[in-house]
Amino acid sequence: MNLVEEFTFKAQLKPPLPVGAGPIGTRMYYDVSGGEVIGDRIRGKLLGGGEWALIGPDGFLRPDVRLQIETHDGAYLYIQYVGLLELNETVQSALANGTGTEYGDQYFFTNPRIETGDERYAWVNTTFFIGEGHLLPNSSVEYRVWRPA
Amino acid sequence: MNLVEEFTFKAQLKPPLPVGAGPIGTRMYYDVSGGEVIGDRIRGKLLGGGEWALIGPDGFLRPDVRLQIETHDGAYLYIQYVGLLELNETVQSALANGTGTEYGDQYFFTNPRIETGDERYAWVNTTFFIGEGHLLPNSSVEYRVWRPA
Amino acid sequence: MNLVEEFTFKAQLKPPLPVGAGPIGTRMYYDVSGGEVIGDRIRGKLLGGGEWALIGPDGFLRPDVRLQIETHDGAYLYIQYVGLLELNETVQSALANGTGTEYGDQYFFTNPRIETGDERYAWVNTTFFIGEGHLLPNSSVEYRVWRPA
Amino acid sequence: MNLVEEFTFKAQLKPPLPVGAGPIGTRMYYDVSGGEVIGDRIRGKLLGGGEWALIGPDGFLRPDVRLQIETHDGAYLYIQYVGLLELNETVQSALANGTGTEYGDQYFFTNPRIETGDERYAWVNTTFFIGEGHLLPNSSVEYRVWRPA
Repeated sequence: MNLVEEFTFKAQLKPPLPVGAGPIGTRMYYDVSGGEVIGDRIRGKLLGGGEWALIGPDGFLRPDVRLQIETHDGAYLYIQYVGLLELNETVQSALANGTGTEYGDQYFFTNPRIETGDERYAWVNTTFFIGEGHLLPNSSVEYRVWRPA
Repeated sequence: MNLVEEFTFKAQLKPPLPVGAGPIGTRMYYDVSGGEVIGDRIRGKLLGGGEWALIGPDGFLRPDVRLQIETHDGAYLYIQYVGLLELNETVQSALANGTGTEYGDQYFFTNPRIETGDERYAWVNTTFFIGEGHLLPNSSVEYRVWRPA
Repeated sequence: MNLVEEFTFKAQLKPPLPVGAGPIGTRMYYDVSGGEVIGDRIRGKLLGGGEWALIGPDGFLRPDVRLQIETHDGAYLYIQYVGLLELNETVQSALANGTGTEYGDQYFFTNPRIETGDERYAWVNTTFFIGEGHLLPNSSVEYRVWRPA
Repeated sequence: MNLVEEFTFKAQLKPPLPVGAGPIGTRMYYDVSGGEVIGDRIRGKLLGGGEWALIGPDGFLRPDVRLQIETHDGAYLYIQYVGLLELNETVQSALANGTGTEYGDQYFFTNPRIETGDERYAWVNTTFFIGEGHLLPNSSVEYRVWRPA
């Protein structure tokens, strides 16, 4: 399968709310205060959203994210995804120190689904996306988002 | 089945983002900026959250809501629910005019699920809740939340 | 809130597949081989389905069920629900011995959502349901399903 | 992003139940009666499952699938996925005639998530999978399933 990169995006996270160890794992909520989307076919900003992360006994964080995007030309997009983030030593150290990681420093993949009613972006409703993430300093996350070519 | 009322809560909504007519219906996003929870066993405030509403061809809005609560004594709770809200004339008029409705003016029911790791509130993880809602003036929603007796 | 009983249904379960302790709990799969639905406005049979149960560290089983119904007059309905089942001593004993329990012997509630395109049953799409369950002998489950009056 | 192929699998579908045009699209249910999984690290058979497909106004079918796998050495795996299948002319013709299509004849991608408690297959719980599908004659579907290298 060949993939092409469609866009990248950054999300700024607020300090987490420790909901704690519940019936299906340890829940941490991160409010997303903003961010930006950069690509040839989509450019815009994150209006906000949230990440309801679930930390499992296997050392993986399973993100469950919902975000709103406003494109540079005024379309509203809703993006949601789940995925896998390996909380390895590099990630734990970066989280503890407020530093970042590189792509490939961790296993961090997602499957974004995007919805919109804006005709100019109708293609996002029928595009399958794969995101690869890494950490940026100061509680931000960056993803590059691919699609099958 | 006998139900007893457990708590009520109010959620203040921001003006919606019209994501628009997508693959499974017309999506409207409402940011939840705050609110309060009042009950004998739970009291606190909403820290925020969102409603990813889906408006169907049948005249019903299907809310899909995720909220964070901080109790008066410092526990963090995550509440999520889906449900049914009939967009009848009373509701449409109230939404258009920024006024409210009474309980019973519309068919508006939800099934909240609440998670927390805080031992003082462990009972919410294993309690089945039913919410009945109505509109408050100025884009707020109020629910009374029941559980089987 | 006043509830009225809309229908009851029985589901026959096959012996479970022990998927085992995974990232969000212990998964057990029960194939649903058949059953029946009895009510004034809905009568029919279960064509099949499945229950992807999740057993938590809190002694509750969280059912995640999807079923297909064929009504006596030829409509196809899809019903899905999640809920809570307390695995107390009465339930554990009944499961071990292949016996049943009574309503009220356990905390067992669900929120069924039903879909259909059949005009004669269009009301199910916009009705909020609450199910209360108990065990029948020989690996069956019975629910009575209520709606707000 | 580099992907490597992990396994392929085939699923045999029964004739669909036309649940019909409901609140979020046109629902078709396909019972999965069997199938097989072939790969270096996973081999086994499908014990059954179902596909709750949703056909949208945009000409795409959105599969929502849950399957049970028994590996050749006795482990039980639960696999679930959603995705996108373009109902283009090639697919519609194949469905009408009971024939197959090739990989690449349609846009057909999924994001399988697999759970198990079996230690020998613990790696599936923390692996991100991407599936590409096509139709086989006589109502079967075949996928090749990739993971990031």
